[in-house]
Amino acid sequence: MAVTSEATTLWTGDLESGKGHTTLDSSKAAELPMSWAARSQGAAGKSNPEELLGAAHSACFSMQFASLLTKNGTTAESIQVTAAVTFAPGEGITGSHLLVSAKVPEISEEDFERIAEEAKATCPVSLALAGTSITLEASLA
Amino acid sequence: MAVTSEATTLWTGDLESGKGHTTLDSSKAAELPMSWAARSQGAAGKSNPEELLGAAHSACFSMQFASLLTKNGTTAESIQVTAAVTFAPGEGITGSHLLVSAKVPEISEEDFERIAEEAKATCPVSLALAGTSITLEASLA
Repeated sequence: MAVTSEATTLWTGDLESGKGHTTLDSSKAAELPMSWAARSQGAAGKSNPEELLGAAHSACFSMQFASLLTKNGTTAESIQVTAAVTFAPGEGITGSHLLVSAKVPEISEEDFERIAEEAKATCPVSLALAGTSITLEASLA
Repeated sequence: MAVTSEATTLWTGDLESGKGHTTLDSSKAAELPMSWAARSQGAAGKSNPEELLGAAHSACFSMQFASLLTKNGTTAESIQVTAAVTFAPGEGITGSHLLVSAKVPEISEEDFERIAEEAKATCPVSLALAGTSITLEASLA
């Protein structure tokens, strides 16, 4: 079954002095204030598209890695994934870096590294993000 | 200046019975419960990577459209953008559909359509999402 999930942004005014908020329509889990200052200068307290892209990528990678580890006979106790997404005004989104730390009983270092690379290459958000660079640093906790 | 934004997912257990939550680290604006059931069956109440990707895309498009409308000398009063992102298990992310309604004083229908298409093509999240299909439906409110 295909599932369609929705989110809505309402923006008022121009880019620099205007403001927006983004609602997670499907889950109703959050309403997020957004700003150009958060995006272009890292101003505190508001979200931006790159933070949300990082949230999507970290969640997708964690699911894919969990699935592949179970297929390997080595289900994870826990997987922590931070996605760091970089935006350069005038240039665009230059990359998503995945920093992974996972507790996986009885797996070899070699299998762990191989499966982490496979999760990076095959997670649906990685595949959708074909227009940017994706890097990975994974370690057994 | 390049800005790096971060989000972290912590997942425990396998894909189907495990659970996760995603934290927006840079803004600290939300902590979101995630589930495979929300992603693969549209189960209510929890978020999933596609909803977050839609949030990123709708926010990015709204900023790009706001910027281009101001450059045209027709700053928007408001721009509402819903991104609907579809996930088919086993197939991946099949598309992001942008549904846009905007109040823009004194713009022609023709300029409005042209600038909306330009925003779709040039918004940084659209460019990063080169691996999936992006469609647009825009109307003047």
